[in-house]
Amino acid sequence: MIVVVCLNPALDLTYHVDALVRGESLRVTAVAERAGGKGVNVARVLAQLGAPACLIGFADEQHASMLSCAELDARWTPIAAQTRRTVTVIDGEATVLREPGPLVADAEWAAFDAGYRALLTSRPDVVVLSGSLPLGLALDTYALLIEAAETLGVPCILDAEGDALRHGLAARPYLAKPNAGEARQLGEGDPLETVMRAGARNAVVSAGRDGLRAALDGRTFKARVPTVAGNPTGAGDALTAVLAHGIAAGQPWSEVLRQAAATAAAAATAPVAGEFDPAVAASLLPRVTVEEI
Amino acid sequence: MIVVVCLNPALDLTYHVDALVRGESLRVTAVAERAGGKGVNVARVLAQLGAPACLIGFADEQHASMLSCAELDARWTPIAAQTRRTVTVIDGEATVLREPGPLVADAEWAAFDAGYRALLTSRPDVVVLSGSLPLGLALDTYALLIEAAETLGVPCILDAEGDALRHGLAARPYLAKPNAGEARQLGEGDPLETVMRAGARNAVVSAGRDGLRAALDGRTFKARVPTVAGNPTGAGDALTAVLAHGIAAGQPWSEVLRQAAATAAAAATAPVAGEFDPAVAASLLPRVTVEEI
Repeated sequence: MIVVVCLNPALDLTYHVDALVRGESLRVTAVAERAGGKGVNVARVLAQLGAPACLIGFADEQHASMLSCAELDARWTPIAAQTRRTVTVIDGEATVLREPGPLVADAEWAAFDAGYRALLTSRPDVVVLSGSLPLGLALDTYALLIEAAETLGVPCILDAEGDALRHGLAARPYLAKPNAGEARQLGEGDPLETVMRAGARNAVVSAGRDGLRAALDGRTFKARVPTVAGNPTGAGDALTAVLAHGIAAGQPWSEVLRQAAATAAAAATAPVAGEFDPAVAASLLPRVTVEEI
Repeated sequence: MIVVVCLNPALDLTYHVDALVRGESLRVTAVAERAGGKGVNVARVLAQLGAPACLIGFADEQHASMLSCAELDARWTPIAAQTRRTVTVIDGEATVLREPGPLVADAEWAAFDAGYRALLTSRPDVVVLSGSLPLGLALDTYALLIEAAETLGVPCILDAEGDALRHGLAARPYLAKPNAGEARQLGEGDPLETVMRAGARNAVVSAGRDGLRAALDGRTFKARVPTVAGNPTGAGDALTAVLAHGIAAGQPWSEVLRQAAATAAAAATAPVAGEFDPAVAASLLPRVTVEEI
């Protein structure tokens, strides 16, 4: 079983309008609503891969049901403050309005932490920690969660940025998966080396068009996919999901990277993050090259 | 007791951003959230007047609690479809995104109608019917609700526009309160006469800067307030509330109009619809002129 930690999920609203004109009152012609946030996307891709995840984090009572759906085993810890929303206004271009998100109280964190530790006693195969931290949580929150898991021998995958990534890496997670830009926030020099130096025991760094670079069990890999496309968030979250799936299944690294690169490229072309077309992924797979360098 | 029918309430979100730039991803710096819709505004003003109303209509389960608050006695009939939201983005100018609103199912209408008829047996002083109809309801919905009330001797105030107003007037409500623009949608000629011809037994027509004109118990009145200001929705809903309050209290028409004009003008200057500053209303009161013509 894979546990996906999504501490700051979002309710993603998509509004279609004829034209976003500042100062006008505009009729929304179509509304779409779905659970969002990086961890939710990871859990969705895992469900598509046939590897259902247990999705945990914080959600207010009103939004908890909106943040759950048939294919996700979501167990949200209730909070009094309100789950953040994002509103994406589409009129040919996409304009995104991002709410700041909730403040999590100490008692709410304690309730989450107790549930997390209880879940760890069932020895999940992998814990994935994805996305931003809501207000009210310590900067080293991911480090605490990683230590709790890895002490019990459960490998953790950290996919975060900024302070949450930096402080999380100090706990020496099994694997970190930033993109090149997020890795560069950690320091100068080669992004893969920077992530390893900051504490990751293994690392996969994605660099869009330049493919993936990975440092895994002392070996260095490079993976390339010929196509490049649209949605970098969707691609990154699909990559994390396939890495978790491959690690849980004990696949060899070269195979994990091949699947991950193809699925991420397929997810980049999907209309929304958290989805990919398995046929597209399958068609890309023969065109992925993975080399050890 | 006053019953306020608000069939299509809204969850009004206000987002403050630095600058609304199309195609960008923008951080929302502040979020405000409150129940909206014309009937909700009327009920809020009635609460401020010390005349609490019973607020009824449709809301989905997730939003029902967000659409209730301490000062409102809201009894929402649950619906499966989602209550509409409006998002107002403020960056100096206000840009409004209006969701289309829910589709109400036949069984949901039947549940509402049964509750409404039960409420009428307690003989409320006045029924107020305010705002738009959600999808799925017949165009003559207000006519049905008016007939049910007035058959029992309960006077109705109709505040709607377009087809909902036109079909509602056919049931000959005690009072209609469109603004001049809404009245003109009913036909050519003098707005007040048009509303009366369309079926209203009494009518108050607001015309912004030109004040109010009213046809009440065979008499014609004109009310003027020297100031004019901001928020026409807030002003119109406050006007409806004071008319309901005055009718419930059996005040003479000239006094009702004087209070209504002053409160509406005060509400126009309030930051959000559904509120007014009683001190501003009191200061405007001596400057209101009401003449019978």
